[in-house]
Amino acid sequence: MPMSHRLATTSSHRGALPKSVDVREAAHTARQASRVLATLSADVKNAVLREIAKAIEDSCGEVLRANAKDIQSARESGLAAAKLQRLELTEKSLGQLAEGVRQVAALPDPVGAVTTDRTLASGLRVRKVRSPLGVIAMIYEARPGVTVDAFALCFKAGNACILRGGKEAERSNAVLSGIIGRVLEARGVPEAALVNLSGTSREALATLLTIDKDIDLVIPRGGRELIELVCSISRIPTIQHFQGVCHVYVDESADLDMAVAICLSAKTSAPATCNALECILVHKNISDQFVPRMVEQFAKAGVQVRGTPLVQALAPAEHAVDLAQPEDFGKEFLDLIVAMRTVDSVDEAIEHIACYGSNHTEAIVTGDLGPGGAANRFCARVQSSCTLVNASTRFNDGFQLGLGAEIGISTSRLHAYGPMGLEELTTQRYVVIGSGQTR
Amino acid sequence: MPMSHRLATTSSHRGALPKSVDVREAAHTARQASRVLATLSADVKNAVLREIAKAIEDSCGEVLRANAKDIQSARESGLAAAKLQRLELTEKSLGQLAEGVRQVAALPDPVGAVTTDRTLASGLRVRKVRSPLGVIAMIYEARPGVTVDAFALCFKAGNACILRGGKEAERSNAVLSGIIGRVLEARGVPEAALVNLSGTSREALATLLTIDKDIDLVIPRGGRELIELVCSISRIPTIQHFQGVCHVYVDESADLDMAVAICLSAKTSAPATCNALECILVHKNISDQFVPRMVEQFAKAGVQVRGTPLVQALAPAEHAVDLAQPEDFGKEFLDLIVAMRTVDSVDEAIEHIACYGSNHTEAIVTGDLGPGGAANRFCARVQSSCTLVNASTRFNDGFQLGLGAEIGISTSRLHAYGPMGLEELTTQRYVVIGSGQTR
Repeated sequence: MPMSHRLATTSSHRGALPKSVDVREAAHTARQASRVLATLSADVKNAVLREIAKAIEDSCGEVLRANAKDIQSARESGLAAAKLQRLELTEKSLGQLAEGVRQVAALPDPVGAVTTDRTLASGLRVRKVRSPLGVIAMIYEARPGVTVDAFALCFKAGNACILRGGKEAERSNAVLSGIIGRVLEARGVPEAALVNLSGTSREALATLLTIDKDIDLVIPRGGRELIELVCSISRIPTIQHFQGVCHVYVDESADLDMAVAICLSAKTSAPATCNALECILVHKNISDQFVPRMVEQFAKAGVQVRGTPLVQALAPAEHAVDLAQPEDFGKEFLDLIVAMRTVDSVDEAIEHIACYGSNHTEAIVTGDLGPGGAANRFCARVQSSCTLVNASTRFNDGFQLGLGAEIGISTSRLHAYGPMGLEELTTQRYVVIGSGQTR
Repeated sequence: MPMSHRLATTSSHRGALPKSVDVREAAHTARQASRVLATLSADVKNAVLREIAKAIEDSCGEVLRANAKDIQSARESGLAAAKLQRLELTEKSLGQLAEGVRQVAALPDPVGAVTTDRTLASGLRVRKVRSPLGVIAMIYEARPGVTVDAFALCFKAGNACILRGGKEAERSNAVLSGIIGRVLEARGVPEAALVNLSGTSREALATLLTIDKDIDLVIPRGGRELIELVCSISRIPTIQHFQGVCHVYVDESADLDMAVAICLSAKTSAPATCNALECILVHKNISDQFVPRMVEQFAKAGVQVRGTPLVQALAPAEHAVDLAQPEDFGKEFLDLIVAMRTVDSVDEAIEHIACYGSNHTEAIVTGDLGPGGAANRFCARVQSSCTLVNASTRFNDGFQLGLGAEIGISTSRLHAYGPMGLEELTTQRYVVIGSGQTR
């Protein structure tokens, strides 16, 4: 094979390593790149990100052609409609991706931030300094947009990333990685800041998840099955973004207009998201007022209510409520279905959540806001990643909580709990200045 | 079996579950206890801790008798002398343990601390609140003192703990857990705040490490073999306290008196600890002054130096230096042995550390403290859990860095990096107050 042809092949695969790729070698190049990225200035990182945003817009046609091929293959192999939808890129969605990258460029750089600075009796000046995690592996499915989002966040936080998207998005991811790689190369930044392993085999994935020497964090993003697979084989710290079985508890002191509005919106504004409402707990003392109104609103919005017999009895005759089965509690419907039951007290609501919740998001609607009141009791004892008083569960989101960006919502308590933004993609290390101290 | 006898048996096993214990059930009782512990006031926790300190002192005889039996069994089964030493408790060491518990009582309670508090444009008041991790499993070896230390730290941070010490310390751990359990019971705190599984089988340990539903964090404390075993089978987030291959780089601008004093102390003050010095990197421009003095001091202190040929050539004739083998670099000697080589620049020192270091602790001795100087360059590019300028590596320690206590030193970047104190035994969750917001 003539050299020029080999080069051309390599070039067209920029960012997409050949199938026979040695994942250990690939992870090691990411580790080496991460050492350079750790000390890049914010200015350099931001300039690179803005250039990548422009390059994505400029290469719109190239990306959409690759994406069309992915979609065609996926159709031919009978991919489900929902997955096909996730796979699809459009001019508009590419524009949004580029805009997202510009937003990341505009966020403050977490690296180098000093979070503690004190001088101890020994005379040592002890600082804690935010530093990159190192190398982050993202394991995801059909969405090619993750390639751009995840790279931008990891890069801004000074990390190299290994991106392993699904086989169905292989061509789209190769082109997007290639665009990013060309900008990195032009700016003199190690190209292995992004190692694209999209479409590699299950075996390669299994190997990847053992390379704890060169990978610091694994983030699986996708359905329950993917997350469980990754967690079961990973030897590397893995942050889980599991399901959200989100509850709203309507207290006896609740403003009922507010309660109905919050529940309706939390269920219907985006039912397929992890912070959507799945189960309403109603204080028995206001159930006769709340349940009929809520059920009527849900009926108008096309939401199926599955209630306990008491809820059924309180529903208006024209909007019958299905009988809830035991498995309807603790279930993530991700659809226009909601479970509903009554409780005797805030404590019974808290017990229900401890038993059936998923530590994701829980809200209380209440007027009892005093020190010993229902709101405080609920927020102290429900230890989910986010508890809300008089607001929709849909606010548990990195943008809505002011993080500026989000790589996912962690339901594990270690490292990060709740939305993960740029800070959560860093660690903190000690830098100590002395004047000859020994011990 | 008459009831009274069964109760007596249970009582004598207080804290030490019977061999046939269902570890899943045990972990679940810890989870239930953790929900109560999460909302205990600092006053209650501190009173319990002080009472435990007193109970340990009052029960000194009982503990020492159990410990003597453990030591006798261990001797009979041929336990190595070093392990026997770790197993042994004395009146003095028990007093220190009790004092340690009182110190933990005196530390600020991390739980409930608000680390972020801001009101967003949406009107939502978003707070991040420190909360317990939940249930922490400590896996350790012969040291019975860990039972007391680990319980005190976990409890103060609002966590339940599952303590699985080695078989050799089984009786000592049973008595210590029993003492703690009696205080908990008397104070009305769930006894499952401490679940003692010391001495249970390898199979039970393997099961324990899969119970991710009821255990939030695993901390193995012991030798490399134990840590590797636990990490290889744990399905639960695990914080590694791996080896410390600690370096001191002596810059060309170093105060040589200071450099010799720091290296001598870092190597000899406690050679078996993870923050002891293992390898010295000397700038070539001052090697002819530094090496002879350092080698002489090491010779006086009984430290064996393993050097490169250049170091050998610079050593005084009366103190010959052994030739370093390739495996002497990157090695944790944990003994009075040190590796030494010369480097051409601070950058070569940084490269050596990237190649051979363990991300634990690295120090530079230098007079070049300006913005673009060697100290800053070293601290920016060496991303170990602690980098020190002009101070001994031995300061990477929870007490020395002002944390007040330490459950270990993490060498993984996730969650905690470096010494772990009370704050590192907590997570942060969002508590959001609204006034009816939906999206």
